[in-house]
Amino acid sequence: MTFPVVGMIGGGQLARMTHEAGIPLGIRFRILSDTPQDSAAQVVGDVTVGDYRDLDTLRAFARGCDVITFDHEHVPAAHLRALEADGVVVRPGPDALRHAQDKGVMRTRLAELGVPCPVNRIVADPADVTRFAGEAGGYPVVLKTVRGGYDGKGVWIARSEADAAEPFKAGVPVLAEEKVDFVRELAANVVRSPHGQAVAYPVVESVQVDGVCDTVIAPAPGLPEELSAKAQQLALTVARELGVVGHLAVELFEVRAADGTPGILVNELAMRPHNSGHWTMDGAATSQFANHLRAVLDLPLGDPRPRARWTVMANVLGGDFPDMYAAYLHCMARDPGLKIHMYGKDVKPGRKVGHVTTYGDDLADVRERARHAADYLRGTIDE
Amino acid sequence: MTFPVVGMIGGGQLARMTHEAGIPLGIRFRILSDTPQDSAAQVVGDVTVGDYRDLDTLRAFARGCDVITFDHEHVPAAHLRALEADGVVVRPGPDALRHAQDKGVMRTRLAELGVPCPVNRIVADPADVTRFAGEAGGYPVVLKTVRGGYDGKGVWIARSEADAAEPFKAGVPVLAEEKVDFVRELAANVVRSPHGQAVAYPVVESVQVDGVCDTVIAPAPGLPEELSAKAQQLALTVARELGVVGHLAVELFEVRAADGTPGILVNELAMRPHNSGHWTMDGAATSQFANHLRAVLDLPLGDPRPRARWTVMANVLGGDFPDMYAAYLHCMARDPGLKIHMYGKDVKPGRKVGHVTTYGDDLADVRERARHAADYLRGTIDE
Repeated sequence: MTFPVVGMIGGGQLARMTHEAGIPLGIRFRILSDTPQDSAAQVVGDVTVGDYRDLDTLRAFARGCDVITFDHEHVPAAHLRALEADGVVVRPGPDALRHAQDKGVMRTRLAELGVPCPVNRIVADPADVTRFAGEAGGYPVVLKTVRGGYDGKGVWIARSEADAAEPFKAGVPVLAEEKVDFVRELAANVVRSPHGQAVAYPVVESVQVDGVCDTVIAPAPGLPEELSAKAQQLALTVARELGVVGHLAVELFEVRAADGTPGILVNELAMRPHNSGHWTMDGAATSQFANHLRAVLDLPLGDPRPRARWTVMANVLGGDFPDMYAAYLHCMARDPGLKIHMYGKDVKPGRKVGHVTTYGDDLADVRERARHAADYLRGTIDE
Repeated sequence: MTFPVVGMIGGGQLARMTHEAGIPLGIRFRILSDTPQDSAAQVVGDVTVGDYRDLDTLRAFARGCDVITFDHEHVPAAHLRALEADGVVVRPGPDALRHAQDKGVMRTRLAELGVPCPVNRIVADPADVTRFAGEAGGYPVVLKTVRGGYDGKGVWIARSEADAAEPFKAGVPVLAEEKVDFVRELAANVVRSPHGQAVAYPVVESVQVDGVCDTVIAPAPGLPEELSAKAQQLALTVARELGVVGHLAVELFEVRAADGTPGILVNELAMRPHNSGHWTMDGAATSQFANHLRAVLDLPLGDPRPRARWTVMANVLGGDFPDMYAAYLHCMARDPGLKIHMYGKDVKPGRKVGHVTTYGDDLADVRERARHAADYLRGTIDE
């Protein structure tokens, strides 16, 4: 047996879906999970329960792994450097990962690379936020703690200096950004190998509701080919220049200049499989999870092209209706082509507990099918 | 949490691939595996190691399962009846399963249903085989033990009475069948639910080498639509009349009557996911494994339609070359659209250790790509 062992730190749905993608590869897959009940821990054969913030736990987990990768970006960089010093292969490595762990570091580096971003700088206190607002076109401005935020957490919209106190309470540096007047949100997802091979998925539209990804449409409807190519090229450049290994999601704002010229600005980076890439499981020749594994194993990457004209992914959020399995009957009978992906997580209001995917030639129909299933599973509609 | 628990008896590659299909459904999946090293036991989270021939082991395993299903057909019928008497839901049930467990029972029942089969009867001894040969057009004839055979095991071609002694040594009843002069082998795969819903996959061509499935082409090239519909209808009838729940593979011979009229004869039945349906993982809207699970859970079935014009599956057999992972580099680099499925089994000559799938519009190209990858992984070619 010469098949490698991949260790993934984290037991969430990304680890769960990476396991699913790893089974056909014949590799050994193990996870470091916070609890035995975590999403991935329910379905993975080789589970270590432990705290990723503890270096001894990480060292014990890494023993016997050919490569370590991640379901989240929260492992302290110092621990990853210690693992590398032990000879552990960590992909993406800490030098790349710090750009996804610290939004200040990310903004500085992207500026050096000439990558278009919203106007931004680190701010010291509420009075400094007001000075920043003066530089960036006025209030409202967006405030983000540089570490620890996701899905709208760690992000505030300040409409005045009185609004700007909250973010400073966490004791983490605060980044201020202009509130971009965007047309819509896009994501450019790429996967890169250690030897430098890279693939780019079609650029998708990501529809956000209350700061949480709601629907992803692949490819982004009506996106000019030139802008699509520019977004893919930008993501490939970021992956190369930051030394990313594995999946990189570049969340983008599509904007229009005063003269109507379309453009893009980078919103966020994620160095792991990403919600904006879940459509690839059913909609692309090779899923983001399979390509992430191929990349961290330094195997040749798989075809990223779409298999259908349109693929739509809708997140299933927890609602007041806890029994999602009972909803399968109606959803599956209504739409035999529906693809359901549940994560084994307890239903809590607003929590992402699964997603659904649909594909076909008629975008309106494909969107309606995904929307219906997500709403029915959540319990917001009952027919 | 109201998601059901599915228990599968057996830890082979079919259980492994069923687990893969079950992860997105959010169900709980557990297996009863012969050893902790079995193909599925390597990747499933909830594994019981034990002997499926032992009723107490089966009873303990079934406790807490909402439904029991199978990776193989070898569980003694009496044990399944005992489980049913305990109130365990067994799908397919023993009344259906005995037709896949005993070729004599199967032939008798298919004759009652008017399903076309090769001329056949149970034979008592070599002299009786010669009498059968006289009734069925002469030697050679095919001899099969009624139980325990698969992949060419338990099957003999007798060219004379002197050849006919071997099958009787097992002490199991022997079925004699005419040696059909077939055009090619086909398979009609269907899935049926307890409430009677059924779906039919496209009829495929199954290319056998030395009695083992080598390549499956979906759909069967050049199959007249009338014959395809007849084969699907036949499989649906068999599933309904035998009370099958789950996946049913009907292996068929395509024949030509003396006047050139095309026809089909039933060769074998399998009541579980089947090698002739592996192409559905990459080539159909819903895989045989996902639909098997949906059927045993009595959920509405998924769309069985193909996603590509042609899909070809080639089995990867063990060869002299033990390190199949090393071959990934060449295979993946040569063909980014190649889908590899390895089973985590030790390489032994002739053993099925994985399969590869390709799809596209040009059948010759799709076949060549699958053939190349399977041969390269096996080590019979090196470029």
